[in-house]
Amino acid sequence: MTLIVHGAPYSTCTQRVLTTLAELNVEDYKLELVDLSKGAHKGPDFVKLQPFGQIPVLQDGDITIFESRAIVRYLCEKFAGHGTPLLGKTVKDKALVSQWLEVESQNYNPATATIVFEKVFGPMFGKPCDDAVVAAQTAKLEKTLDVYEAHLAKSKFLAGDFFSLADLSHLPYTNMLVYAAGKSDLITSRPHVSAWWNAISQRPTFQKVLALQKH
Amino acid sequence: MTLIVHGAPYSTCTQRVLTTLAELNVEDYKLELVDLSKGAHKGPDFVKLQPFGQIPVLQDGDITIFESRAIVRYLCEKFAGHGTPLLGKTVKDKALVSQWLEVESQNYNPATATIVFEKVFGPMFGKPCDDAVVAAQTAKLEKTLDVYEAHLAKSKFLAGDFFSLADLSHLPYTNMLVYAAGKSDLITSRPHVSAWWNAISQRPTFQKVLALQKH
Ligand SMILES: N[C@@H](CCC(=O)N[C@@H](CS)C(=O)NCC(=O)O)C(=O)O
Ligand SMILES: N[C@@H](CCC(=O)N[C@@H](CS)C(=O)NCC(=O)O)C(=O)O
Repeated sequence: MTLIVHGAPYSTCTQRVLTTLAELNVEDYKLELVDLSKGAHKGPDFVKLQPFGQIPVLQDGDITIFESRAIVRYLCEKFAGHGTPLLGKTVKDKALVSQWLEVESQNYNPATATIVFEKVFGPMFGKPCDDAVVAAQTAKLEKTLDVYEAHLAKSKFLAGDFFSLADLSHLPYTNMLVYAAGKSDLITSRPHVSAWWNAISQRPTFQKVLALQKH
Repeated sequence: MTLIVHGAPYSTCTQRVLTTLAELNVEDYKLELVDLSKGAHKGPDFVKLQPFGQIPVLQDGDITIFESRAIVRYLCEKFAGHGTPLLGKTVKDKALVSQWLEVESQNYNPATATIVFEKVFGPMFGKPCDDAVVAAQTAKLEKTLDVYEAHLAKSKFLAGDFFSLADLSHLPYTNMLVYAAGKSDLITSRPHVSAWWNAISQRPTFQKVLALQKH
């Protein structure tokens, strides 16, 4: 049965799901476009799938799941043994993948998403950037990245010497931070974070997902 | 080998871990107190365990994990088959538990934790409550709770007809919201949310964890 991903190629949370599918070598899926610009995500049919009116949503037969980090975990479990072992192989590796996934979700993402919203998405929809908010969130993110820098000095990837879902989960918003929000200095000023970012962002899977936006 | 939980009984994130241990019937663990009032969580020894200087941290032999939601997932996997099956039993149930855990972490917790900080923890440490922040976060939380109300009209617990980690993860902060932040009306004004809150908060496991604060 073909998987259906409801989303959009320019949506960061959709990119998290599509990159995971690519790393797992899953090609048998359909991307069902949800046109945010037309408000399709707030329409009655879509809200039956995702009551908060947000993308992405995954449908797999009679299973419907939303929340991108729940979707990617589900996919990794469903396709265990295919492609990259994104959850890790040992009990210890799995614990560390979960830990760094939570760091992304609790510490890294709130600051990053707010900066990207203020600098990119807000202005796109006519809301001027609030510089005070950007400054406060940048200060928070600097502290988080200082911890990453010290950690990545000792560890090639976040959960150890292997690329995992924890690294992958950072890709979509960091890409926006660096290329759209004018904040690449946060990364380049930290040599180990920079080397890590280069390694993970140049993966062909993520590049392929980014290229979907050009169609 | 005895598990060690570094934390404090009054810390909401520690309570998430202790309630999980109680639901799994795990009694062979040691709670190693970290005295936040003395800044123990920012001391050099503690920061080696948790580089962000926060509680809780779990040590299990050579495995050290932080981030409460990563810890509880690890515990549920380690003690699968003991006590309450908190992650669900079928593939579909597990997917829905992950989904609602993410809703807690992404939608429910940020607003709730901010309200509790402004109304309770901030003033405790001499920072006056910012009423505008409380109003904005309350408005967000109302919308989230409206989705919960519609969902809980059709489902006894968040992920289905069984108590899961998704419900459990809501306990510590909702308890603060209701009993310390003066926001019980957010719950009681919604009959299905209210019935759900009564069912989950009265579980003996959570009551036992709350009672630890009295020692
Ligand atoms: N926590 C959710 C967030 C989803 C989200 O914010 N999606 C965005 C697109 S990247 C969206 O649908 N925005 C429209 C809206 O929130 O109204 C997830 O990870 O799936
Ligand atoms: N996302 C973390 C948050 C941990 C957290 O905020 N812990 C609080 C106690 S509940 C703490 O250590 N606060 C002191 C501080 O942040 O300096 C988790 O879920 O473990």
